[in-house]
Amino acid sequence: MALKKSRDILIYADTARSSDALYFGDVQITDPFISFSLRGRKYCVVSALEFGRVKRTSSFDEVLALETWVDRTRKAFPGERPVPAKIIAVIVKALRAGTLTVPSDFPAGVFEQLKALKVKLEVADGDLFPEREVKSNADAEGLREGNRCSAAGLAAAEKLLRRSKIRSGTLYLDGSVLTSERLKVAIETACIEQGSVSSNTIAAGGDQGCDPHDRGSGPLRANELIVLDIFPRVTETGFFGDMTRTFLKGRASDAQKAIVAGVREAQLAALGAVKAGVSGKAVHQTVLDVFAKLGFETKHTPKGSVGFFHGTGHGVGLDIHEAPRLGPTVDAPLKKGTVVTVEPGLYYPGIGGCRIEDVVQVTSGAPRMLSSYHYEWELK
Amino acid sequence: MALKKSRDILIYADTARSSDALYFGDVQITDPFISFSLRGRKYCVVSALEFGRVKRTSSFDEVLALETWVDRTRKAFPGERPVPAKIIAVIVKALRAGTLTVPSDFPAGVFEQLKALKVKLEVADGDLFPEREVKSNADAEGLREGNRCSAAGLAAAEKLLRRSKIRSGTLYLDGSVLTSERLKVAIETACIEQGSVSSNTIAAGGDQGCDPHDRGSGPLRANELIVLDIFPRVTETGFFGDMTRTFLKGRASDAQKAIVAGVREAQLAALGAVKAGVSGKAVHQTVLDVFAKLGFETKHTPKGSVGFFHGTGHGVGLDIHEAPRLGPTVDAPLKKGTVVTVEPGLYYPGIGGCRIEDVVQVTSGAPRMLSSYHYEWELK
Repeated sequence: MALKKSRDILIYADTARSSDALYFGDVQITDPFISFSLRGRKYCVVSALEFGRVKRTSSFDEVLALETWVDRTRKAFPGERPVPAKIIAVIVKALRAGTLTVPSDFPAGVFEQLKALKVKLEVADGDLFPEREVKSNADAEGLREGNRCSAAGLAAAEKLLRRSKIRSGTLYLDGSVLTSERLKVAIETACIEQGSVSSNTIAAGGDQGCDPHDRGSGPLRANELIVLDIFPRVTETGFFGDMTRTFLKGRASDAQKAIVAGVREAQLAALGAVKAGVSGKAVHQTVLDVFAKLGFETKHTPKGSVGFFHGTGHGVGLDIHEAPRLGPTVDAPLKKGTVVTVEPGLYYPGIGGCRIEDVVQVTSGAPRMLSSYHYEWELK
Repeated sequence: MALKKSRDILIYADTARSSDALYFGDVQITDPFISFSLRGRKYCVVSALEFGRVKRTSSFDEVLALETWVDRTRKAFPGERPVPAKIIAVIVKALRAGTLTVPSDFPAGVFEQLKALKVKLEVADGDLFPEREVKSNADAEGLREGNRCSAAGLAAAEKLLRRSKIRSGTLYLDGSVLTSERLKVAIETACIEQGSVSSNTIAAGGDQGCDPHDRGSGPLRANELIVLDIFPRVTETGFFGDMTRTFLKGRASDAQKAIVAGVREAQLAALGAVKAGVSGKAVHQTVLDVFAKLGFETKHTPKGSVGFFHGTGHGVGLDIHEAPRLGPTVDAPLKKGTVVTVEPGLYYPGIGGCRIEDVVQVTSGAPRMLSSYHYEWELK
């Protein structure tokens, strides 16, 4: 990445928790570390444990040895613990930094200590690297790879569902009950084999699928909608995939057929609306319009919500949820090159839940699909 | 968990990034959410997406509907975006909270906005929940389960190494080269099957194993030390395992035998020293003493460090690295019930790297082993 020379940056985070830190140095470091920019050059401070690898593989211009700066900090603050804020203060003074911009998720404890040490800081207004929102071709390829992993997970699950047998309304495979847990093991194993890690995978059948964040558990049953939502992170690059399909083993009822057809129609309408210059709200509205036209009601009850009660989509990149959003309050126009999920859903306890999700890159014309998997869903 | 009534807490984080948030409510939520305590009762604020599940499965006393508080925030700040800080300010005012203590990793952006909104905050001095350091029996069982997953990963890798054939110095399995990547797929698949997710798994052979954070890549070779460091997180509970073994396929040199024997001797010495009341520094010193006695030198060179240049161990729990530490500057005595890794290592490019790591719980006598795997390492 190229730095804007006008603004100096300070991050204290590990790259698993902070995609900004990953984006900044293009190297994965599992413990929190100091990184910053000064006059257009990018620095990080790492221990002997990380030094060689970071020097070899990162995009930092300068890799400083933590041990050296811990020593200098001990000298500057005799008898005190060389905590990160003190190390930062010593470095910043030695290198004559001005005001540093920190991300909004910068740790408040370090922030307060730095201010007490008279280091000049300001918190980024919005994203630290707003340029992360628009994806390069390489980024899009990273996202496509993430979705290849999602699709491998879908394929693994579909295979088990197809091979399963129905006995007294319950699915069986190789002599034992087919559970949500078994599907998730198959999905996550497929992701591992493709070079990604899928956490919090959703494989939720029946009414479990009506709670969009219920990951699913226990035996899967015939004639029930099964929502599979798979969002693996590619180990090498840190980019995510994010795809959802809804399957049913056995025979679908008319009500189930209607909601699956409705969700797919809404998804196609939304995909048709995604375009540079269109607002996230306008895309979301196409989904609401389709559901209204088809007579699918949304209601909020004390026991939970039914119908369609989440956003139509979200940006995805090095974070699973990032800018831009597709939802009812998003006025900003979509920028060319941004990448969003398009994932309408309908959820009616008693009938089941259905969500269909793909990932696209915004262009000035039809969006560029970055995910690919078929839409057949009734498995006999 | 029982709350100390004297102190009210505020967290804004997701539970994947914040183990404090996970510990607080005992439920996993993948997007950042507001949680707090007031007069001994624990509250969280979640959207319709999470409401039902959180109400059903968390330990929060009150689950507030985000949508309701967004509406109230819009009314309180007409025409402004209902950002988390404003929602928190509205809730805090409505519920008449006093000063709230936030964790040191609380997001600085929200922190600054809350202060501007006159919400009284203080940053926790040290850990938000220092009581997390001492593990209950249930916690220890969670950690044991994590290590069962680590051990399953080790077993999967060892099996492949045993089955591999040596051809021109390189390892082959089922007709193709056995790589670090293939070992990691086998390890991570085993972890998935056991109900955990292993990220950043290390399977590093030869000189790659001398860089303790090099994850390993490419073909594995005969007669080289192969470091396997596996730290999976149990999906259901969030507890980690963390185990390392070092294998060699083929024939070990005398130098390799010496470092493996030295590391194991150092580990046994350290395990013998771990006890309530002993400092982390004293445990670390036993490792240094063994290496000094055996003549293993540690040197820091511009190209990196050789010998033993990391801590002897770290606390492990809902975070992979947490209190207490076993290292040269840790004066505090170990508390009964804390859980630490014990993982000395020696790293000499040309000979290779060796690390052996187990997890133990501190008692007033010999530590309680929470990990179990054999120490044979030469695979013929």
